[in-house]
Amino acid sequence: MNKTITVLPGDGIGPEVIKAAQKVLDTVAEKFSHQFTYQNAKIGGVAIDEDGTPLPQETIDLCKKSDGVLLGAVGGPKWDTLPGHMRPERGLLGIRKALELYANLRPVTAHKSLLDASTLKREVIEGVDLMIVRELTGGLYFGQPQERRQENDGESVVDTLYYKNYEIERIIRQAFELARLRRKKVTSVDKANVLESSRVWREIAIAVHADYPDVELEHMLVDNAAMQLIRDPKQFDVVVTENMFGDILSDEASMLTGSLGMLPSASINGNGPGLYEPIHGSAPDIAGKNLANPLATILSVAMLLRYSFLMQEEADAVETAVTKVLEAGYRTGDIAEKGQPVLSTEEMTEKVIEHI
Amino acid sequence: MNKTITVLPGDGIGPEVIKAAQKVLDTVAEKFSHQFTYQNAKIGGVAIDEDGTPLPQETIDLCKKSDGVLLGAVGGPKWDTLPGHMRPERGLLGIRKALELYANLRPVTAHKSLLDASTLKREVIEGVDLMIVRELTGGLYFGQPQERRQENDGESVVDTLYYKNYEIERIIRQAFELARLRRKKVTSVDKANVLESSRVWREIAIAVHADYPDVELEHMLVDNAAMQLIRDPKQFDVVVTENMFGDILSDEASMLTGSLGMLPSASINGNGPGLYEPIHGSAPDIAGKNLANPLATILSVAMLLRYSFLMQEEADAVETAVTKVLEAGYRTGDIAEKGQPVLSTEEMTEKVIEHI
Ligand SMILES: CC(C)[C@H](C(=O)O)[C@@H](O)C(=O)O
Ligand SMILES: CC(C)[C@H](C(=O)O)[C@@H](O)C(=O)O
Repeated sequence: MNKTITVLPGDGIGPEVIKAAQKVLDTVAEKFSHQFTYQNAKIGGVAIDEDGTPLPQETIDLCKKSDGVLLGAVGGPKWDTLPGHMRPERGLLGIRKALELYANLRPVTAHKSLLDASTLKREVIEGVDLMIVRELTGGLYFGQPQERRQENDGESVVDTLYYKNYEIERIIRQAFELARLRRKKVTSVDKANVLESSRVWREIAIAVHADYPDVELEHMLVDNAAMQLIRDPKQFDVVVTENMFGDILSDEASMLTGSLGMLPSASINGNGPGLYEPIHGSAPDIAGKNLANPLATILSVAMLLRYSFLMQEEADAVETAVTKVLEAGYRTGDIAEKGQPVLSTEEMTEKVIEHI
Repeated sequence: MNKTITVLPGDGIGPEVIKAAQKVLDTVAEKFSHQFTYQNAKIGGVAIDEDGTPLPQETIDLCKKSDGVLLGAVGGPKWDTLPGHMRPERGLLGIRKALELYANLRPVTAHKSLLDASTLKREVIEGVDLMIVRELTGGLYFGQPQERRQENDGESVVDTLYYKNYEIERIIRQAFELARLRRKKVTSVDKANVLESSRVWREIAIAVHADYPDVELEHMLVDNAAMQLIRDPKQFDVVVTENMFGDILSDEASMLTGSLGMLPSASINGNGPGLYEPIHGSAPDIAGKNLANPLATILSVAMLLRYSFLMQEEADAVETAVTKVLEAGYRTGDIAEKGQPVLSTEEMTEKVIEHI
């Protein structure tokens, strides 16, 4: 098959992990006789520096015309003092919105050979296999007004958690669809004892559940969920939640796997191209040093193959290669235990390629 | 000294743990020659059932006239389907607001004898001693509008994250004051790469820091904080954050201690009575069974003695008694390891009293 992939390396370690991911894609193309065409585009800090905006229109156009988008990471201290609309992160939020990527899938799997890299006890995380489904184009991230105010009695500031009901419905439906392909349990996370949006969220979850009687639905308050993820993560199958809650819970859940450097994500819509990116950030402290763990991005490539190109066998090949490399004891710095030899980004990538 | 304490048992296990706490207070009074007068009042579900409102005016009046307020817990499935303004939780939010208890102090200490009760590895939590300072009367919990809307293109719902700048300033100042008495480090947690309120929060933190040059200030994004609490909790001393973020992070942090049943909290204002309550909820599943862990409420009594009555020696006596009881191997069900004998709420309370 012929596929066009828009590649957005971004900032910090972004270009390094993207290079790794492209090598893996090239290997898959060769092995399975596909043709992948890449088109590079700018986003984040690098786009601010070169084009004066974190998300050039050209980037949006290229993404829309491609079959899938692969993103590295955005942001860095260099741009941290710019006003909100000129932050690198605004580029990321902008492309999510422009492609209407409302469903962010964040699978959390405890790799057997990494069990000891986690700060949690082995017996707590062994067998963890959950999927966080984060709403990605609404909620507290995008609601208006978002502004500073000058009031009679002083200054104030406001952000808005806003949802149209259909936005809540479609993400919950997505979660049920995914649960059907897994262990058939959805945990809907909200703060229904305080927030009106959460009460609506819960009502809609109950209504949508009627269409999925074969799937179990459970409601959990977000504070409790933050606790249960550490207390007993194996209780979860699919977790669906609001944008900001999902941001917090998925970073927390990454600790079950030992490192944020292991976690891929897919942002999809159902129609049009999906966007695939590691959960980790741009890690400016180690950028350009060939130290970054490329596995989260490589596993994002597997998600791209699986969800956007429907190439199951190819996706399996990439995931299996990563598992084998870990089993063989290869580690980057973030997942190495005391005494284990540490591979560079490029060396780790080579190992994965050898195993495909 | 003579002190008047308003006691709000509330729902579920609330009355049981409050009874335990009062016994401890009685023991302190006797031992240190104080006189504590209790006035009981209703809040939450029990108030809804008897008075038709989760927070009767009489309760507010009694609290205001007392030297300190001790609260059990509110809520339960019985009231979960009532509209927002008639929820038990609204009583809790209401009393926090009525007494303007903007600073919620949630200390998290890893008790040496409970290290193995946590799902985290011993070496990760040994020595943890942090304090979450949660803003409690603003932010996403209280901002207006909070409502459902009927719009041209369908239904929608909104909650509002709103702060007056002075509300941010006073809570950050409180955090610096506390840090001065501790290890002199403040971690200010926000989501400044997305939220305008977080950018203002960060600016104010930097401005207030000028008055506390002896204290270190660090900024951390909330998603990263959720991760760092599990990755390396010992890096934290005082953590200060928005209401909702603090709710999530403090429940998560409770896992460092093995059980939510261990964590006390103080909600204070600087003037007027403070409110002291365990972090755990009303636990309807074990209510009335003499199974609840009373230690979080007993440790809340210690905070009441320390912060509202300035009785340091008395507070130390209670905290030391709890430590000794744990060292002697006494456990309630939530913190017992396999094979350890399990005490009832009343038995555990007796043990604490014996050790005061
Ligand atoms: C960079 C930031 C805007 C982003 C988010 O909060 O969504 C990141 O944390 C993520 O989770 O993808
Ligand atoms: C019961 C609920 C309203 C409350 C809150 O969210 O503040 C509780 O979770 C807490 O943390 O004290």
